[in-house]
Amino acid sequence: MQAAMELFSERGYDRVTVGEIAARAGLTERTFFRYFTDKREVLFSGSDMLVQALTKALTEAPADESPMEAVGSALDAIARALEAHRTRDEAKVRYGVVTAHPELMERERAKMSKLVDALTVALHKRGVEEPAASLVAEAGIAVFRVGFERWLEDEHDVSMAEHMQIALKTLQQVTAPSVKPRKKR
Amino acid sequence: MQAAMELFSERGYDRVTVGEIAARAGLTERTFFRYFTDKREVLFSGSDMLVQALTKALTEAPADESPMEAVGSALDAIARALEAHRTRDEAKVRYGVVTAHPELMERERAKMSKLVDALTVALHKRGVEEPAASLVAEAGIAVFRVGFERWLEDEHDVSMAEHMQIALKTLQQVTAPSVKPRKKR
Repeated sequence: MQAAMELFSERGYDRVTVGEIAARAGLTERTFFRYFTDKREVLFSGSDMLVQALTKALTEAPADESPMEAVGSALDAIARALEAHRTRDEAKVRYGVVTAHPELMERERAKMSKLVDALTVALHKRGVEEPAASLVAEAGIAVFRVGFERWLEDEHDVSMAEHMQIALKTLQQVTAPSVKPRKKR
Repeated sequence: MQAAMELFSERGYDRVTVGEIAARAGLTERTFFRYFTDKREVLFSGSDMLVQALTKALTEAPADESPMEAVGSALDAIARALEAHRTRDEAKVRYGVVTAHPELMERERAKMSKLVDALTVALHKRGVEEPAASLVAEAGIAVFRVGFERWLEDEHDVSMAEHMQIALKTLQQVTAPSVKPRKKR
Protein backbone atom coordinates (compact mmCIF):
# COMPACT_ATOMS: atom_id res chain seq x y z
CA MET A 1 0.00 0.00 0.00
CA GLN A 2 1.87 2.98 -1.36
CA ALA A 3 0.18 5.68 0.75
CA ALA A 4 1.08 3.89 3.98
CA MET A 5 4.71 3.31 2.93
CA GLU A 6 5.06 7.01 2.07
CA LEU A 7 3.77 7.99 5.50
CA PHE A 8 5.95 5.41 7.32
CA SER A 9 8.96 6.71 5.43
CA GLU A 10 8.15 10.36 6.16
CA ARG A 11 7.23 10.12 9.83
CA GLY A 12 8.06 6.66 11.16
CA TYR A 13 5.72 3.70 11.53
CA ASP A 14 4.96 4.30 15.20
CA ARG A 15 3.78 7.88 14.71
CA VAL A 16 1.44 7.23 11.79
CA THR A 17 -2.26 6.62 12.58
CA VAL A 18 -4.76 4.56 10.63
CA GLY A 19 -6.73 7.77 10.07
CA GLU A 20 -3.76 9.35 8.33
CA ILE A 21 -3.14 6.31 6.14
CA ALA A 22 -6.79 6.25 5.10
CA ALA A 23 -6.77 9.97 4.34
CA ARG A 24 -3.58 9.73 2.24
CA ALA A 25 -5.03 6.79 0.32
CA GLY A 26 -8.30 8.67 -0.22
CA LEU A 27 -10.31 6.18 1.84
CA THR A 28 -12.64 6.59 4.80
CA GLU A 29 -11.46 4.84 7.98
CA ARG A 30 -14.46 2.58 7.61
CA THR A 31 -13.29 1.45 4.18
CA PHE A 32 -9.73 1.02 5.48
CA PHE A 33 -11.01 -1.38 8.14
CA ARG A 34 -12.84 -3.37 5.48
CA TYR A 35 -9.42 -4.27 4.05
CA PHE A 36 -7.14 -4.24 7.07
CA THR A 37 -7.81 -5.21 10.68
CA ASP A 38 -5.13 -2.77 11.91
CA LYS A 39 -2.03 -0.81 10.96
CA ARG A 40 0.19 -3.90 11.25
CA GLU A 41 -1.96 -5.62 8.66
CA VAL A 42 -0.90 -3.09 6.03
CA LEU A 43 2.57 -4.63 6.23
CA PHE A 44 1.39 -8.23 5.94
CA SER A 45 -1.67 -8.03 3.70
CA GLY A 46 0.19 -9.80 0.89
CA SER A 47 1.29 -12.82 2.99
CA ASP A 48 -1.58 -15.18 2.20
CA MET A 49 -1.45 -14.27 -1.47
CA LEU A 50 2.28 -15.01 -1.47
CA VAL A 51 1.72 -18.47 0.03
CA GLN A 52 -0.94 -19.23 -2.57
CA ALA A 53 1.08 -17.82 -5.47
CA LEU A 54 4.16 -19.81 -4.49
CA THR A 55 2.17 -23.04 -4.17
CA LYS A 56 0.49 -22.41 -7.54
CA ALA A 57 3.80 -21.62 -9.24
CA LEU A 58 5.36 -24.82 -7.89
CA THR A 59 2.36 -26.89 -8.98
CA GLU A 60 2.67 -25.41 -12.47
CA ALA A 61 6.44 -25.98 -12.77
CA PRO A 62 7.25 -28.51 -15.55
CA ALA A 63 6.87 -32.11 -14.33
CA ASP A 64 10.33 -33.08 -15.57
CA GLU A 65 12.09 -30.47 -13.43
CA SER A 66 13.92 -31.74 -10.35
CA PRO A 67 12.41 -30.57 -7.01
CA MET A 68 15.04 -27.83 -6.63
CA GLU A 69 14.65 -26.72 -10.26
CA ALA A 70 10.88 -26.57 -9.78
CA VAL A 71 11.33 -24.41 -6.68
CA GLY A 72 13.72 -22.24 -8.72
CA SER A 73 11.04 -21.80 -11.40
CA ALA A 74 8.45 -20.98 -8.75
CA LEU A 75 10.74 -18.37 -7.14
CA ASP A 76 11.32 -16.86 -10.57
CA ALA A 77 7.59 -16.48 -11.16
CA ILE A 78 7.05 -15.07 -7.66
CA ALA A 79 9.88 -12.57 -7.96
CA ARG A 80 8.45 -11.21 -11.20
CA ALA A 81 4.98 -10.90 -9.65
CA LEU A 82 6.33 -9.23 -6.48
CA GLU A 83 8.44 -6.78 -8.44
CA ALA A 84 5.46 -5.79 -10.60
CA HIS A 85 3.35 -5.26 -7.48
CA ARG A 86 5.67 -3.16 -5.28
CA THR A 87 8.64 -0.89 -6.03
CA ARG A 88 11.97 -1.52 -4.39
CA ASP A 89 11.64 1.70 -2.42
CA GLU A 90 8.29 0.62 -1.01
CA ALA A 91 9.69 -2.82 -0.20
CA LYS A 92 12.65 -1.16 1.53
CA VAL A 93 10.42 1.00 3.73
CA ARG A 94 8.29 -2.01 4.64
CA TYR A 95 11.32 -4.16 5.48
CA GLY A 96 12.93 -1.35 7.48
CA VAL A 97 9.78 -1.01 9.59
CA VAL A 98 9.50 -4.77 10.12
CA THR A 99 13.13 -5.32 11.13
CA ALA A 100 12.96 -2.41 13.59
CA HIS A 101 10.05 -3.92 15.56
CA PRO A 102 10.58 -7.28 17.31
CA GLU A 103 6.84 -8.10 17.25
CA LEU A 104 6.74 -7.48 13.50
CA MET A 105 9.87 -9.59 13.01
CA GLU A 106 8.08 -12.39 14.84
CA ARG A 107 5.27 -12.15 12.33
CA GLU A 108 7.76 -12.02 9.44
CA ARG A 109 9.38 -15.22 10.71
CA ALA A 110 5.97 -16.87 11.04
CA LYS A 111 5.26 -15.88 7.42
CA MET A 112 8.54 -17.46 6.25
CA SER A 113 7.70 -20.57 8.23
CA LYS A 114 4.28 -20.74 6.51
CA LEU A 115 6.02 -20.45 3.14
CA VAL A 116 8.29 -23.39 4.05
CA ASP A 117 5.26 -25.46 5.11
CA ALA A 118 3.34 -24.61 1.94
CA LEU A 119 6.32 -25.53 -0.25
CA THR A 120 6.80 -28.79 1.66
CA VAL A 121 3.16 -29.80 1.08
CA ALA A 122 3.37 -28.85 -2.62
CA LEU A 123 6.57 -30.90 -2.96
CA HIS A 124 4.90 -33.92 -1.34
CA LYS A 125 2.19 -33.57 -4.01
CA ARG A 126 4.92 -33.69 -6.65
CA GLY A 127 5.97 -37.03 -5.15
CA VAL A 128 9.04 -35.77 -3.28
CA GLU A 129 9.66 -37.78 -0.12
CA GLU A 130 11.06 -36.81 3.29
CA PRO A 131 13.55 -35.56 4.28
CA ALA A 132 14.17 -34.25 0.73
CA ALA A 133 10.90 -32.27 0.57
CA SER A 134 11.53 -30.37 3.82
CA LEU A 135 15.13 -29.66 2.86
CA VAL A 136 14.25 -28.40 -0.62
CA ALA A 137 11.51 -26.22 0.90
CA GLU A 138 13.86 -24.78 3.54
CA ALA A 139 16.59 -24.24 0.97
CA GLY A 140 14.10 -22.60 -1.39
CA ILE A 141 12.91 -20.13 1.23
CA ALA A 142 16.52 -19.43 2.23
CA VAL A 143 17.15 -18.52 -1.42
CA PHE A 144 14.01 -16.39 -1.41
CA ARG A 145 15.01 -14.52 1.74
CA VAL A 146 18.65 -13.98 0.80
CA GLY A 147 17.79 -13.06 -2.82
CA PHE A 148 15.14 -10.64 -1.61
CA GLU A 149 17.51 -8.92 0.85
CA ARG A 150 20.23 -8.65 -1.79
CA TRP A 151 17.71 -7.08 -4.15
CA LEU A 152 16.73 -4.53 -1.49
CA GLU A 153 20.37 -3.51 -1.05
CA ASP A 154 21.27 -3.59 -4.74
CA GLU A 155 22.42 -0.36 -6.31
CA HIS A 156 22.75 -1.63 -9.86
CA ASP A 157 19.11 -2.27 -10.68
CA VAL A 158 19.49 -6.01 -10.96
CA SER A 159 15.99 -7.55 -10.86
CA MET A 160 14.64 -9.54 -7.90
CA ALA A 161 14.28 -12.60 -10.13
CA GLU A 162 17.93 -12.35 -11.10
CA HIS A 163 19.01 -12.04 -7.45
CA MET A 164 17.06 -15.17 -6.60
CA GLN A 165 18.73 -17.07 -9.43
CA ILE A 166 22.14 -15.86 -8.21
CA ALA A 167 21.27 -17.00 -4.67
CA LEU A 168 20.14 -20.38 -6.00
CA LYS A 169 23.34 -20.86 -8.01
CA THR A 170 25.40 -19.82 -4.98
CA LEU A 171 23.56 -22.34 -2.81
CA GLN A 172 24.27 -25.05 -5.36
CA GLN A 173 27.95 -24.13 -5.37
CA VAL A 174 28.33 -24.00 -1.59
CA THR A 175 26.47 -27.26 -0.97
CA ALA A 176 28.36 -29.18 -3.66
CA PRO A 177 30.71 -31.67 -1.95
CA SER A 178 34.21 -30.26 -2.40
CA VAL A 179 36.57 -32.15 -4.69
CA LYS A 180 38.89 -34.19 -2.50
CA PRO A 181 42.27 -33.33 -4.18
CA ARG A 182 41.80 -29.75 -2.93
CA LYS A 183 42.34 -30.97 0.63
CA LYS A 184 45.86 -31.08 1.90
CA ARG A 185 46.16 -32.45 5.41
CA MET B 1 15.39 -30.36 32.96
CA GLN B 2 14.22 -33.90 33.49
CA ALA B 3 11.80 -33.26 36.38
CA ALA B 4 9.89 -30.67 34.38
CA MET B 5 9.67 -32.87 31.27
CA GLU B 6 8.30 -35.74 33.38
CA LEU B 7 5.61 -33.47 34.80
CA PHE B 8 4.75 -31.96 31.38
CA SER B 9 4.45 -35.45 29.98
CA GLU B 10 2.26 -36.70 32.86
CA ARG B 11 -0.11 -33.76 33.21
CA GLY B 12 0.34 -31.36 30.32
CA TYR B 13 2.47 -28.20 30.22
CA ASP B 14 -0.42 -25.83 30.97
CA ARG B 15 -1.45 -27.60 34.18
CA VAL B 16 1.99 -27.86 35.76
CA THR B 17 3.04 -25.10 38.16
CA VAL B 18 6.54 -23.84 38.91
CA GLY B 19 6.03 -25.02 42.50
CA GLU B 20 5.46 -28.57 41.30
CA ILE B 21 8.50 -28.51 39.04
CA ALA B 22 10.67 -27.24 41.88
CA ALA B 23 9.33 -29.90 44.25
CA ARG B 24 9.93 -32.72 41.76
CA ALA B 25 13.45 -31.46 41.15
CA GLY B 26 14.09 -31.20 44.89
CA LEU B 27 14.51 -27.42 44.77
CA THR B 28 12.84 -24.58 46.63
CA GLU B 29 10.87 -22.19 44.43
CA ARG B 30 13.42 -19.56 45.35
CA THR B 31 16.23 -21.66 43.94
CA PHE B 32 14.16 -22.45 40.84
CA PHE B 33 13.81 -18.74 40.15
CA ARG B 34 17.54 -18.29 40.48
CA TYR B 35 17.91 -20.44 37.35
CA PHE B 36 14.72 -19.74 35.40
CA THR B 37 12.66 -16.56 35.10
CA ASP B 38 9.47 -18.59 34.49
CA LYS B 39 8.06 -21.93 33.38
CA ARG B 40 8.63 -21.12 29.70
CA GLU B 41 12.33 -20.65 30.43
CA VAL B 42 12.66 -24.31 31.38
CA LEU B 43 12.03 -25.11 27.71
CA PHE B 44 14.54 -22.60 26.37
CA SER B 45 17.28 -22.53 28.98
CA GLY B 46 19.69 -24.26 26.58
CA SER B 47 19.25 -21.77 23.72
CA ASP B 48 22.11 -19.41 24.48
CA MET B 49 24.43 -22.30 25.18
CA LEU B 50 23.47 -23.83 21.84
CA VAL B 51 24.31 -20.60 20.01
CA GLN B 52 27.69 -20.41 21.74
CA ALA B 53 28.46 -24.09 21.23
CA LEU B 54 27.62 -23.94 17.53
CA THR B 55 29.77 -20.85 17.01
CA LYS B 56 32.64 -22.45 18.91
CA ALA B 57 32.36 -25.70 16.94
CA LEU B 58 32.40 -23.80 13.64
CA THR B 59 35.40 -21.75 14.71
CA GLU B 60 37.22 -24.96 15.61
CA ALA B 61 36.40 -26.77 12.36
CA PRO B 62 39.56 -27.46 10.30
CA ALA B 63 40.60 -24.43 8.24
CA ASP B 64 40.80 -26.42 5.01
CA GLU B 65 37.18 -27.50 5.18
CA SER B 66 34.76 -25.80 2.78
CA PRO B 67 32.13 -23.59 4.50
CA MET B 68 29.46 -26.29 4.18
CA GLU B 69 31.84 -29.01 5.39
CA ALA B 70 32.76 -26.85 8.38
CA VAL B 71 29.07 -26.38 9.21
CA GLY B 72 28.66 -30.15 8.85
CA SER B 73 31.48 -30.71 11.35
CA ALA B 74 29.95 -28.17 13.73
CA LEU B 75 26.52 -29.84 13.51
CA ASP B 76 28.16 -33.17 14.21
CA ALA B 77 29.79 -31.82 17.38
CA ILE B 78 26.54 -30.15 18.48
CA ALA B 79 24.45 -33.25 17.88
CA ARG B 80 26.77 -35.34 20.02
CA ALA B 81 26.67 -32.74 22.82
CA LEU B 82 22.87 -32.40 22.64
CA GLU B 83 22.36 -36.15 22.68
CA ALA B 84 24.59 -36.52 25.72
CA HIS B 85 22.65 -33.78 27.49
CA ARG B 86 19.04 -34.81 26.91
CA THR B 87 17.37 -38.15 26.11
CA ARG B 88 15.21 -38.48 23.03
CA ASP B 89 12.13 -38.94 25.20
CA GLU B 90 12.82 -35.67 27.03
CA ALA B 91 13.46 -33.90 23.73
CA LYS B 92 10.19 -35.31 22.37
CA VAL B 93 8.19 -34.02 25.34
CA ARG B 94 9.81 -30.60 25.02
CA TYR B 95 9.17 -30.39 21.28
CA GLY B 96 5.58 -31.59 21.69
CA VAL B 97 4.92 -28.83 24.24
CA VAL B 98 6.57 -26.19 22.04
CA THR B 99 4.75 -27.10 18.83
CA ALA B 100 1.39 -27.16 20.64
CA HIS B 101 1.72 -23.53 21.83
CA PRO B 102 1.91 -20.77 19.20
CA GLU B 103 3.74 -18.38 21.57
CA LEU B 104 6.36 -21.05 22.27
CA MET B 105 6.69 -21.76 18.55
CA GLU B 106 7.40 -18.07 18.05
CA ARG B 107 10.22 -18.33 20.51
CA GLU B 108 11.48 -21.51 18.85
CA ARG B 109 11.57 -19.71 15.48
CA ALA B 110 13.40 -16.78 17.09
CA LYS B 111 15.95 -19.26 18.46
CA MET B 112 16.47 -20.79 15.01
CA SER B 113 16.86 -17.32 13.57
CA LYS B 114 19.53 -16.53 16.19
CA LEU B 115 21.37 -19.71 15.25
CA VAL B 116 21.35 -18.63 11.58
CA ASP B 117 22.70 -15.19 12.55
CA ALA B 118 25.42 -16.68 14.75
CA LEU B 119 26.50 -19.08 12.01
CA THR B 120 26.54 -16.24 9.46
CA VAL B 121 28.83 -14.14 11.66
CA ALA B 122 31.11 -17.12 12.32
CA LEU B 123 31.30 -17.81 8.57
CA HIS B 124 32.21 -14.18 7.86
CA LYS B 125 35.06 -14.66 10.32
CA ARG B 126 36.19 -17.68 8.29
CA GLY B 127 36.37 -15.34 5.29
CA VAL B 128 33.16 -16.49 3.59
CA GLU B 129 31.50 -13.66 1.66
CA GLU B 130 27.86 -12.80 1.03
CA PRO B 131 25.55 -14.19 -0.18
CA ALA B 132 27.39 -17.49 0.37
CA ALA B 133 27.69 -17.05 4.16
CA SER B 134 23.96 -16.42 4.68
CA LEU B 135 23.03 -19.31 2.40
CA VAL B 136 25.38 -21.77 4.08
CA ALA B 137 24.07 -20.65 7.50
CA GLU B 138 20.44 -21.04 6.44
CA ALA B 139 21.16 -24.38 4.80
CA GLY B 140 23.03 -25.52 7.91
CA ILE B 141 20.15 -24.68 10.23
CA ALA B 142 17.71 -26.33 7.82
CA VAL B 143 19.84 -29.48 8.11
CA PHE B 144 19.86 -29.08 11.90
CA ARG B 145 16.07 -28.68 12.11
CA VAL B 146 15.21 -31.48 9.70
CA GLY B 147 17.83 -33.83 11.15
CA PHE B 148 16.61 -33.10 14.66
CA GLU B 149 12.96 -33.77 13.77
CA ARG B 150 13.87 -37.01 11.99
CA TRP B 151 15.80 -38.09 15.06
CA LEU B 152 12.78 -37.39 17.29
CA GLU B 153 10.60 -39.59 15.07
CA ASP B 154 13.16 -42.32 14.54
CA GLU B 155 12.29 -45.78 15.79
CA HIS B 156 15.57 -47.46 14.94
CA ASP B 157 17.87 -45.71 17.40
CA VAL B 158 19.90 -43.92 14.77
CA SER B 159 21.87 -41.15 16.50
CA MET B 160 21.10 -37.44 16.12
CA ALA B 161 24.54 -36.89 14.59
CA GLU B 162 23.83 -39.54 11.98
CA HIS B 163 20.46 -37.99 11.14
CA MET B 164 22.12 -34.63 10.62
CA GLN B 165 24.70 -36.18 8.29
CA ILE B 166 21.88 -37.88 6.34
CA ALA B 167 20.04 -34.56 6.08
CA LEU B 168 23.24 -32.84 4.91
CA LYS B 169 23.87 -35.50 2.23
CA THR B 170 20.24 -35.26 1.13
CA LEU B 171 20.54 -31.49 0.85
CA GLN B 172 23.66 -31.90 -1.28
CA GLN B 173 21.84 -34.35 -3.54
CA VAL B 174 18.72 -32.22 -3.98
CA THR B 175 20.59 -28.99 -4.63
CA ALA B 176 22.99 -30.54 -7.15
CA PRO B 177 22.10 -29.24 -10.63
CA SER B 178 20.45 -32.14 -12.45
CA VAL B 179 22.37 -33.71 -15.31
CA LYS B 180 20.93 -32.37 -18.54
CA PRO B 181 20.58 -35.68 -20.49
CA ARG B 182 17.94 -36.73 -17.93
CA LYS B 183 15.61 -34.08 -19.33
CA LYS B 184 13.38 -35.11 -22.19
CA ARG B 185 11.34 -32.24 -23.51
